[in-house]
Amino acid sequence: MKLVLIRHGESEWNKLNLFTGWTDVELSEKGVDEAKEASRQLKEAGFDFDLCYTSYLKRAIHTLNEVLLGLDREWLPVKKSWKLNERHYGALQGLNKSETAAKYGEEQVKIWRRSYAVMPPALEEQDERNPRTQEQYREVEDKETLPLTESLKETVARVVPYFESEIKPQMQAGKRIVIAAHGNSLRALVKYFDNLSEDEIMGVNIPTAVPLVYEFDNDFKVLKHYYLANEEELNAKMNAVANQGKAK
Amino acid sequence: MKLVLIRHGESEWNKLNLFTGWTDVELSEKGVDEAKEASRQLKEAGFDFDLCYTSYLKRAIHTLNEVLLGLDREWLPVKKSWKLNERHYGALQGLNKSETAAKYGEEQVKIWRRSYAVMPPALEEQDERNPRTQEQYREVEDKETLPLTESLKETVARVVPYFESEIKPQMQAGKRIVIAAHGNSLRALVKYFDNLSEDEIMGVNIPTAVPLVYEFDNDFKVLKHYYLANEEELNAKMNAVANQGKAK
Repeated sequence: MKLVLIRHGESEWNKLNLFTGWTDVELSEKGVDEAKEASRQLKEAGFDFDLCYTSYLKRAIHTLNEVLLGLDREWLPVKKSWKLNERHYGALQGLNKSETAAKYGEEQVKIWRRSYAVMPPALEEQDERNPRTQEQYREVEDKETLPLTESLKETVARVVPYFESEIKPQMQAGKRIVIAAHGNSLRALVKYFDNLSEDEIMGVNIPTAVPLVYEFDNDFKVLKHYYLANEEELNAKMNAVANQGKAK
Repeated sequence: MKLVLIRHGESEWNKLNLFTGWTDVELSEKGVDEAKEASRQLKEAGFDFDLCYTSYLKRAIHTLNEVLLGLDREWLPVKKSWKLNERHYGALQGLNKSETAAKYGEEQVKIWRRSYAVMPPALEEQDERNPRTQEQYREVEDKETLPLTESLKETVARVVPYFESEIKPQMQAGKRIVIAAHGNSLRALVKYFDNLSEDEIMGVNIPTAVPLVYEFDNDFKVLKHYYLANEEELNAKMNAVANQGKAK
């Protein structure tokens, strides 16, 4: 069984170096190009899909749209779930990463970005960005499940059960699946698939819009995983992600 | 209960005056603009949706994508079905409408385009455009249900049962629905909703990318229907559709 994960391309806020989280920002022009390139890589490697998953956030939806357009597979079913959203960054959302680093210290920002269980300050209930009162999440019945901030631990706690209950059975039924999502919702899956420790997952940087292929045996043990990109390109992209949040 | 129908914007082949049917062509630039305008009309009139339907054809999918983008509703669930595809135009697909009129006579083309039950010549089984052998329809279990040609009668016979079994129950459960589809798959619905005769539906021309709103009572009787456009714009668009297929 094969599964393809794709982190969305560069967004308008990645470009500005802002904490994004659940802020629903557009892909940048570069991000759209990255998504098209991911599509070309998948086509060249002969990938095809039966079913697609993405988040409620347009940078992931648009990335998937570009991938499907390039593969001539726009007619495929697409399931969207907020459970695949980026990690919620709480009150840091909208702040410049470098400024936050200068204010709170690079170490504190690194803790918020890279520690497994430390949550940034939460959004206030009355904040207009509170997902419990936003139109975008009006269909969610149990509003308390919608976060006001998250560490990676909370992200894992929503992404992995969603994968287990919704996606895994489809894979076991033979469906070839692509998931277009976010740096941290995909890290949650990587931690789960590769059985990584809390420390190990902190060292994993998933590059934007490079297809990450997982192959599983019938017991759902990972046989291997690999990126569809050459090493040089991959390293440049990974370093770019790792260096975000350093004070400039 | 309200339901919104949207015919896709101008496609590359509308522009060239070719019979399109199930040929999976792109929207033209004008078609994209028309879809954006439909979105603005819906927004201005305060429409919102819970669930979206479209066909397997990209001109309808892209129209829906533009509508949802403009409404900031891309996170809504979208269901795609080949049952909402355009009428299959058989062996006429890819032929220039004016040339076909010059060859077969304007009357014959009018019969194929506007008669209720006369099918154009069918695609050959070995034609590469045969949907029974195309990737796009590989998930369809009963391949014999995929047409090689259709009159509006056959289109009605697939669209209406799909509406009744899939869409109507969702409306009755309170969902606000938009369907982005095609001239003839939407005519099938209009015939059904308004209980039109075979002759009457022949006179109905649905303009491209103008939201058509149906309001129903609880017994699913049509209370009224109306287009979200001013009369002048509407007449110009309807005449453009009616004049297609005349020899030039």
